[in-house]
Amino acid sequence: MRAVHVAGAAVHPFGKHPGLTAADLGQRAVRELLGRTGVTPDAVDAGFGGSTYGGSLLAQRVLQHAGVSGPPVFTVENACASGASAVHLGWQAVASGAADVVIAFGAENLSSFGGGTLPLTTNDIEIEQGMVMPAAYAMRAQRYLHDFGASVGDLTAVSVKNRRNGALNPRAHFRREVSEADVAASRPVADPLRLLHCCPNSDGAAAVLLCTAEAARDLGTPSVRMRASVVRSGTFHTGYRDMTWPDITERTAWAAYDLAGLSPGDLDVVELHDAFSIAELLHSEALGIAERGKAHQAVRNGEFERGGRVAVSPSGGLMSRGHPVGATGVTQICEAYWQLTGQAGDLQVPGASVALTHVTGGGIFGVDNGACSVHILTSD
Amino acid sequence: MRAVHVAGAAVHPFGKHPGLTAADLGQRAVRELLGRTGVTPDAVDAGFGGSTYGGSLLAQRVLQHAGVSGPPVFTVENACASGASAVHLGWQAVASGAADVVIAFGAENLSSFGGGTLPLTTNDIEIEQGMVMPAAYAMRAQRYLHDFGASVGDLTAVSVKNRRNGALNPRAHFRREVSEADVAASRPVADPLRLLHCCPNSDGAAAVLLCTAEAARDLGTPSVRMRASVVRSGTFHTGYRDMTWPDITERTAWAAYDLAGLSPGDLDVVELHDAFSIAELLHSEALGIAERGKAHQAVRNGEFERGGRVAVSPSGGLMSRGHPVGATGVTQICEAYWQLTGQAGDLQVPGASVALTHVTGGGIFGVDNGACSVHILTSD
Repeated sequence: MRAVHVAGAAVHPFGKHPGLTAADLGQRAVRELLGRTGVTPDAVDAGFGGSTYGGSLLAQRVLQHAGVSGPPVFTVENACASGASAVHLGWQAVASGAADVVIAFGAENLSSFGGGTLPLTTNDIEIEQGMVMPAAYAMRAQRYLHDFGASVGDLTAVSVKNRRNGALNPRAHFRREVSEADVAASRPVADPLRLLHCCPNSDGAAAVLLCTAEAARDLGTPSVRMRASVVRSGTFHTGYRDMTWPDITERTAWAAYDLAGLSPGDLDVVELHDAFSIAELLHSEALGIAERGKAHQAVRNGEFERGGRVAVSPSGGLMSRGHPVGATGVTQICEAYWQLTGQAGDLQVPGASVALTHVTGGGIFGVDNGACSVHILTSD
Repeated sequence: MRAVHVAGAAVHPFGKHPGLTAADLGQRAVRELLGRTGVTPDAVDAGFGGSTYGGSLLAQRVLQHAGVSGPPVFTVENACASGASAVHLGWQAVASGAADVVIAFGAENLSSFGGGTLPLTTNDIEIEQGMVMPAAYAMRAQRYLHDFGASVGDLTAVSVKNRRNGALNPRAHFRREVSEADVAASRPVADPLRLLHCCPNSDGAAAVLLCTAEAARDLGTPSVRMRASVVRSGTFHTGYRDMTWPDITERTAWAAYDLAGLSPGDLDVVELHDAFSIAELLHSEALGIAERGKAHQAVRNGEFERGGRVAVSPSGGLMSRGHPVGATGVTQICEAYWQLTGQAGDLQVPGASVALTHVTGGGIFGVDNGACSVHILTSD
């Protein structure tokens, strides 16, 4: 298996872009990536585009309009893990020797759906009965608070931290800090979650250049090593029996740690799937960066701050950046790339050399259809 | 690169199945594949599902409900080449050593769209102005007839041949022969194409088991070697300048011949993308099994019959089987597998040992977004 490097990243700022299609957004990110890296379109050996709602042939429409015409190009879908799945298949193409230079991107425009909660599956009785994502995470939150003596204020502390980080991120949908009082005053969504405990639906796109060590050297752009790229499927957690343990995250993360030869204690930066504030607590525990039932204390103690033990969502996370479904997994890798190459500007985590990114897709309770992806990157 | 084998195939018969979702159809095909091959769900290392209209997480919903939970699973989209793209990524996973046993499937239910022509892209001005697939192929037909002295009757001869083959295929949507008079009497669709020059919109699913030589031996099921699996992107042909030469087919096929170390003259069976009768003429020439401008003569001379020089669409092709978009590329490989393992029953091409399958996706004129996939299989 060959070493795979990330040698460039580009993000079209997330937000509300009702005048741009997912393809428009993707084209802008890919064109910016080509411009920044100096890669010519005919040097691209394969392309993978992640999107859930971008429509047929999205990857073709994005890449070919950016000049990449001829090589194998695929649109990849795995709900919120669509973009990370595209990166994974690109990683596999480079690692296996099938390609030397790959573009992986994610693009989504949720504005064309009018906002609101999007159905993840068709003919799903639980979703029809109201078990949409905010409801699922609200139940997980209730259980977490009950089991571990945490408070709604602990959930709020996640929102406050991530919005404080996001306020510094020029690519974020929300670039304004919020106070505990702001969160407490926001409208209820699904008890105990209020609006500011939830990420927004956003439009946006992100793209990365994946390549061999040799290609990275030839390009001369700053590059990082992608030590692990893992996708797993299965139940989000063990049915209704243990809502506070996303075992799909644990299974995926440990496969990635094994592949990278690293452990949770090695991580400097984590960008995880904080679609709701409770999600940061659940996933940080399953990723092994906090003890079970104690992530809320880690947040309160400042351990997840940019200057803390491990920076969790220094980019602002989904809570601030927003969540254009298929673009999220790719933008996390862009943020990690900038952190590890010292290009993160105001967001920079000093001395960051190991980063992990994490997304989950699907995974409503009884529906056995979750996806999860974890990537681990290092500065050399 | 490791040798990749096809060690099992299953097709849910194509037709109108308005009571079944794409996921239902896919589950039936995958369960049948598991039953036929004796593969246990936990032996499956990865899954790839091709679909254009099956909805979010289709591959997860199909595979996990068939018991395959845990490994990496992806939904892959490339319009009419979606299923073949899923097979390609599965082939790459086995060839590269990332997986030993892979399920690739395609599933689609077009009935839920109420039939009719489906939009391939959003915000496409040519499609909005009426340049849907039948119109595009009608223009290609007009040009072909003009340039090469062919007649509408030559197009009809393709329909008659493929419907005669399909009448013997228990998996086909249409299992009734048609006469030249039937075709001539069918309603006009886009001059010169009549209804019986067009494939139907169908619902269906197909699945194949891809694995290493060792896994195929352990299973003990009949197996064939997948010598080449190629996907390419780009223009369907060179804009408006040469409508009778689908250069995306030529580029993809020659990459596949190179990879397989074979040439057009080696082929015994070809399953190609005869979405319209003219398509068989165009693609058979671009695949190199007929001289340019002479495929219509090859059809008339019986060269493409089951007992002819090379059997073209002995399964009945899209014209008879129907065209459940994402399932088509996979069912072609199933038909080739049965041909090469002597399991094709009434459809059997005597002594068949080399087969090629071909699909194209997208590729309306000015829209530079085509996909093409070619697979070459041999009996050993």
